[in-house]
Amino acid sequence: MKFIHDENFAKKAKALQKPLKHETRHPKSIVRIERDETAFQSLRAVKVKDLAFPLTLYSGQSVVLDFGDHCVGYLHYALNHLPLHITDSPVSLEFTFGEFPYEIIKSPEEYIGELGNGWLQNETRNIVFTPYTGALERRYSFRYLKIERIDTAKFPILVADLYADCTSAVRLSDARKFDIPDATLEKIYDMSVKTLKECEQDVFEDGPKRDRRLWIGDLRLQALTDNVTFRNEDLVKRCIYLFSAYRSDTRFVAQCVFPDSSPYVYEWLFFDYSLFYISCVYDFVTEYDDLSFVKETYPMALEQAERVWVVFINQREELNASFIDWCKGLDKSVAMLGVFIYTMKQLVSLAKKIGEEYEFLEKRIEKVSETLLSHFFSEKGLFVTENGQISWHSQIWAVLANVLPKEKNVGILEKMKNSDLEFYPHTPYMMHYYLEALYSCGLKDEAIREIKSYWGKFVDYNFDCCPEIFNSSDHFESPYGAPEINSACHAWSCTPAYWIYRYYHE
Amino acid sequence: MKFIHDENFAKKAKALQKPLKHETRHPKSIVRIERDETAFQSLRAVKVKDLAFPLTLYSGQSVVLDFGDHCVGYLHYALNHLPLHITDSPVSLEFTFGEFPYEIIKSPEEYIGELGNGWLQNETRNIVFTPYTGALERRYSFRYLKIERIDTAKFPILVADLYADCTSAVRLSDARKFDIPDATLEKIYDMSVKTLKECEQDVFEDGPKRDRRLWIGDLRLQALTDNVTFRNEDLVKRCIYLFSAYRSDTRFVAQCVFPDSSPYVYEWLFFDYSLFYISCVYDFVTEYDDLSFVKETYPMALEQAERVWVVFINQREELNASFIDWCKGLDKSVAMLGVFIYTMKQLVSLAKKIGEEYEFLEKRIEKVSETLLSHFFSEKGLFVTENGQISWHSQIWAVLANVLPKEKNVGILEKMKNSDLEFYPHTPYMMHYYLEALYSCGLKDEAIREIKSYWGKFVDYNFDCCPEIFNSSDHFESPYGAPEINSACHAWSCTPAYWIYRYYHE
Repeated sequence: MKFIHDENFAKKAKALQKPLKHETRHPKSIVRIERDETAFQSLRAVKVKDLAFPLTLYSGQSVVLDFGDHCVGYLHYALNHLPLHITDSPVSLEFTFGEFPYEIIKSPEEYIGELGNGWLQNETRNIVFTPYTGALERRYSFRYLKIERIDTAKFPILVADLYADCTSAVRLSDARKFDIPDATLEKIYDMSVKTLKECEQDVFEDGPKRDRRLWIGDLRLQALTDNVTFRNEDLVKRCIYLFSAYRSDTRFVAQCVFPDSSPYVYEWLFFDYSLFYISCVYDFVTEYDDLSFVKETYPMALEQAERVWVVFINQREELNASFIDWCKGLDKSVAMLGVFIYTMKQLVSLAKKIGEEYEFLEKRIEKVSETLLSHFFSEKGLFVTENGQISWHSQIWAVLANVLPKEKNVGILEKMKNSDLEFYPHTPYMMHYYLEALYSCGLKDEAIREIKSYWGKFVDYNFDCCPEIFNSSDHFESPYGAPEINSACHAWSCTPAYWIYRYYHE
Repeated sequence: MKFIHDENFAKKAKALQKPLKHETRHPKSIVRIERDETAFQSLRAVKVKDLAFPLTLYSGQSVVLDFGDHCVGYLHYALNHLPLHITDSPVSLEFTFGEFPYEIIKSPEEYIGELGNGWLQNETRNIVFTPYTGALERRYSFRYLKIERIDTAKFPILVADLYADCTSAVRLSDARKFDIPDATLEKIYDMSVKTLKECEQDVFEDGPKRDRRLWIGDLRLQALTDNVTFRNEDLVKRCIYLFSAYRSDTRFVAQCVFPDSSPYVYEWLFFDYSLFYISCVYDFVTEYDDLSFVKETYPMALEQAERVWVVFINQREELNASFIDWCKGLDKSVAMLGVFIYTMKQLVSLAKKIGEEYEFLEKRIEKVSETLLSHFFSEKGLFVTENGQISWHSQIWAVLANVLPKEKNVGILEKMKNSDLEFYPHTPYMMHYYLEALYSCGLKDEAIREIKSYWGKFVDYNFDCCPEIFNSSDHFESPYGAPEINSACHAWSCTPAYWIYRYYHE
């Protein structure tokens, strides 16, 4: 297995790297995690008292601090002894960070998730001398912090100070503001902007708690939202350059890039994600009208279409090796045809902008559209996969492919909603494409209702940010077999800000 | 409880603080800890192979490294991924440091010692990105290092480099050298010098693994040994100044000083240790002939004698609140009279040097000597405490008090050795005073035989340094209820270098 590293693009990406912005945030209060059936995951952080330093800790004692809002940053802390107490032996502290209360109470020993347990947010430190001032090297993503004193020495210790040095490429105050007359929508908008801000770091991270890398599916949605909020043009460009710089030797754009070290990419690919490279370039030029950027990146965009075309012609069933959504048992074949047509149309638009040939692409669009309609559009008025599966995903992507007249598309979305389908969106990410399908059919009000119904629950539950995954009937659903590793602040769920902006500005 | 902080002495101590010397040491080999009834604690580190970086570690794997000799320093390490493997999730490493193999295999969860478990030598670190280069903040004392990969991620990780940045106030090559014709004695001498070197840091530490503070009982023996080896005059002076600077408000010199932060001393005191302040000054001026130093410190030295005199007069039984030795059930009363007379004689010598009154001190010596002989010297020719206890400790300190003619002292030591006494020296520290008793009686050859018999076992067991405690019939004896917390490199056991030097130079 080899990888393609394009030094030219890598340099361009590097040149756009900028220092992060820092903000110091102190915890606000001491809380107790209590069971409450009305709270998310039946857990609520109940305030015990305002926080005032110093905090005294004896062996075996612990305290849960609430920072009052989601933080992404580095923990700094200072310890001291009481005036007449010597630090007779090292003090051992266990720090447990949580975006949600569940992470605070869930024992790391019980972790059975598929992802490496290194992502669990805990650290132990042994401090030999006091007064001590230090910091944890690793960046954490959290609102709550539990500190437990795990050494057995009998003297008390003081936490003299403790704060998070929070980082982001942007400041909340940088975001474009406008009047949102609906209070719930305003809260959803703010939550989305906060989520995006937390994820805008050295790259657009998918979620700052885990991964800390650049996923193209997330990038596309983040860039769309950034366009109407922070307008961090350079970071979007930097991230597209990174995908251009690091690819697998199959020439597909990787589903994610590790910006920090070689080999930068995995062997593993999602076809839909590779095609979204086209969308990223398309969205960027639509927003910033940068034709030279299209010229630079068009060859790679075309290559994605070419590579997927080969798969379509020869082994269409392989297209299931795509992401689409975290939805168990989903047959992705129809949705992938939709993604293909959707992105090919964007590619044609790019080709036209810079005077490249596009007729052959249009022929392919025609061919795939014909396949989509003749093989999969049933007389019931819904798209059905070869194995008979009728999913929201198939309908949404077929609508986004825009191969039927508008009224038919409207009918599909209506029928889809009114049928009790087993396969429905499991992530805010897939919800975004549902919203796009509604907008594309002129159903903006319906889209806003969906936003208020889906993201409104996050407001009801007092979330700080939009999570990676949300299932109102199972708060413990996890794509990784362990809800404590789920991300409570995830970029692909930040697009309501984009849709709300469009709602009030179009 | 208040403490006396003398700023003048504190400044003098600070002025003598010097940067430490650094030495980089790489591990030599990979070892396996095996049971071996002929080894110390029945555990032997058996070489598996020479160490060559990089080391590959998968989840759950561990490796034990042997640095080839005792180290005191900071661990630096570098991690990397294999060329085609991404560090997909944080790598968690558990580091366990051991002076002896026992510390490597003993689980920290099983610790039941009386000292704070913060002294156990282990750390966990979570590394998010590779290549990584970093270091542990805490200084460790070790020869062996176990590294265990405790995260669950499936990719391998490389330990690309790893070394100890070792520190000491001196270099081994600074030590005075001379020919020692006896091979065992030479090894004991080298081991003693190595032990002293490891303990000479920012102060004379008692043992670099634990405590990291200045104990006056240890200081006295270290300074004696340093006088004939490294001759680090400034460090000895700095340490005596520290004891002068920080005292309890009872005006007693503390048993130990924490040089790093207030309140610097405990409330807790040992009467013998307070009196050894006199010995420290006495030894220093005997070696370096610095009369102005005697003038500075004499008031404090005198104060110790005065304070103990008050206790002797009023509540003699309280003198048991002394250290003397780690020997359970020991009645320290007779030994303490010996210590008192021994140090009072040194005080008289100091007084004479600087023209201070000393006659009243001589009268007190006479009085205490009289008590010692009339109350405790039995017709059997041995010293017996009021409750009838006959210990080595009583005999040794009575001999060192030098209140009987030399031939009687010789007889006491002989009788002591030939009686099967229940209470005998449990520490190399107490052994030092036994050796001094032998020397004071002109029994130098006997002293050297004792050194070869006692410290020679350390050579037989291939120790790197002289330990805090050694009982050949119970390798797991621990004054703290947990042998893993014992120190394998302890200053108070380094005095054979002093005695061997004197043996060949007097």
